[in-house]
Amino acid sequence: MAGRKTTIADVAQRAGVSKGLVSFALNGRPGVSPETRERILSVAHDMGWQPDARARALSTNRSLAYGLVLSRNPSVLSSDPFFPTFISGVERAISGPGHVLVLSVVESLERELETYRSLLESGRVDGVFLTDVRRDDPRLALVQELSAHAVVLGHPRVDAGFPTLSVSDEAALDALVAHLVALGHHELGLVVGPSHMLHAERWRDSLVAAATTRGLRTPRIVETDFSAEMGLAATRELLEGRTPPTAIVYANDHMALAGLGHARRAGIEVPRELSIVGYGDSDMTRYAYPSLTTVSVDVAEWGYRAAQLLMSQVEGGTDDVGQPPPARLEVRESTASVPERPVGP
Amino acid sequence: MAGRKTTIADVAQRAGVSKGLVSFALNGRPGVSPETRERILSVAHDMGWQPDARARALSTNRSLAYGLVLSRNPSVLSSDPFFPTFISGVERAISGPGHVLVLSVVESLERELETYRSLLESGRVDGVFLTDVRRDDPRLALVQELSAHAVVLGHPRVDAGFPTLSVSDEAALDALVAHLVALGHHELGLVVGPSHMLHAERWRDSLVAAATTRGLRTPRIVETDFSAEMGLAATRELLEGRTPPTAIVYANDHMALAGLGHARRAGIEVPRELSIVGYGDSDMTRYAYPSLTTVSVDVAEWGYRAAQLLMSQVEGGTDDVGQPPPARLEVRESTASVPERPVGP
Repeated sequence: MAGRKTTIADVAQRAGVSKGLVSFALNGRPGVSPETRERILSVAHDMGWQPDARARALSTNRSLAYGLVLSRNPSVLSSDPFFPTFISGVERAISGPGHVLVLSVVESLERELETYRSLLESGRVDGVFLTDVRRDDPRLALVQELSAHAVVLGHPRVDAGFPTLSVSDEAALDALVAHLVALGHHELGLVVGPSHMLHAERWRDSLVAAATTRGLRTPRIVETDFSAEMGLAATRELLEGRTPPTAIVYANDHMALAGLGHARRAGIEVPRELSIVGYGDSDMTRYAYPSLTTVSVDVAEWGYRAAQLLMSQVEGGTDDVGQPPPARLEVRESTASVPERPVGP
Repeated sequence: MAGRKTTIADVAQRAGVSKGLVSFALNGRPGVSPETRERILSVAHDMGWQPDARARALSTNRSLAYGLVLSRNPSVLSSDPFFPTFISGVERAISGPGHVLVLSVVESLERELETYRSLLESGRVDGVFLTDVRRDDPRLALVQELSAHAVVLGHPRVDAGFPTLSVSDEAALDALVAHLVALGHHELGLVVGPSHMLHAERWRDSLVAAATTRGLRTPRIVETDFSAEMGLAATRELLEGRTPPTAIVYANDHMALAGLGHARRAGIEVPRELSIVGYGDSDMTRYAYPSLTTVSVDVAEWGYRAAQLLMSQVEGGTDDVGQPPPARLEVRESTASVPERPVGP
């Protein structure tokens, strides 16, 4: 690349001073008189001089870039709106100051760790976002070992040693269970994410706690990888069991939509015969029929604050950007009263 | 960031040579005897020395990074699986050699242009992907002016001056129209993307040409911004018209799924009373009920080849990575024979 760009030498020649003086003036270092600095800056501006990000990064020891590494299988990634929405929030925070997001998508945990190491050791990024924290997550140790900056998303349940930003959803999940209890449901099915992801485990535990506190039986639980395909298989498993649940709660919206499709195909009317609940409040929940009762999480705002927090960490500033707004229950059309069971055998 | 990393000075001290000699040896420059080079490399390796990406980029005049700027409103971005899928393909190509993707999401065309300029002028990226090319697109002129590397996605219908990679879909769109004609459909509705995007215009023209060639009336066309919300509004407009179409073809899958939801809500049975067709073959098309007839595009492979082509451009190599596989029709459950019209008034 690089056609003919204005260099410091060009500016020096036009201004009739040394390259060193131009460099000092442009970098705001002491030792240049105010008048000379003013004249050099004016010449540089007229000639369209632009600082080179690589050179500037080297001189400031900053990359002005942040890293996000996603370890998901591509099919889950393409149907799950979480990350595109999160990224749009991150971008809103960092693009103003001219910082950028370096994104990697990897297909194994091993590659994920390697990628974080490489991004940080090479100085390509000033800090990283850590999502989907796992039990004994080796990334936490890695980032600590490298003395790098990081923001952890979710509830790591461990002292990560890094600031953490999470959307509080216990109240919304409890409100959801209260809503289902009020409709007469007793048997809940939960379609959960991978138990090695702490946020998936936490989601499951919150719902189980809310259900038992409110006098329901322990929900039946089926674990998935968050994909629509496994959401469909989990729905089938729950509905073909001996005592099928009257309401199924899914750990994300696209598994719930796949469950809705399966129920219709099997001739089960939603919500008359089965209530279905998603999580996330993605766009498509509003356009499905019936529209999906779900838990609304402001993912873009979460991304925005996480990026603000990470920038503030890198700059040695305060941590106080505030937590993102709590999740809230969105009641739509896919939940209704449990049908009365026929009397007798 | 940056705890205590091994520096060139550390290696020089341990090896008992000058820093300059270490630097020459590590950068493979001439003037170092093979034995000395071997010894220095071995010491550097034992001490865990890592090249700094910023320093290396400055010395090679390469960033080892590629830029993608998306100008979409966040709600469209979060429900449209195109970009996450495309990005997963790009990553598969670039992550092996240790290159990275710099991603920006912007909300206006003005910001988009500024962002491309800033990424390229600052040397943050070695080249860019240009998507959603528009009529008289100022980005083409900008990238040319900066003598930068770019790969254009789609069919720009202009001599962009850059290599172009596109998925050929005329045959699949013609096969789709043939499929609908064979089912007895005469009146098609098209829900198209923004006409200022050349790929949206081209998609519309291909379908109109296929329809008129096969003896159908000119389809009724409603333009949208690709969002599910406008897909829903377009469906309503088409169905409430004087002669509603018996089949509606949408420019993406999530608009088609929103149309499917609307039809069901309005008591219109799909496919018995209305056929619905998507575009893209995203994951959710298989899990909807009825499952969606759509045009399958291998977006991940497109991203993979686009990244290979861009890397090859930057390295001054050959352009021949081959075009991605053509689109193909996926007939599923949402298309069926047109119902016979009742006889008489």
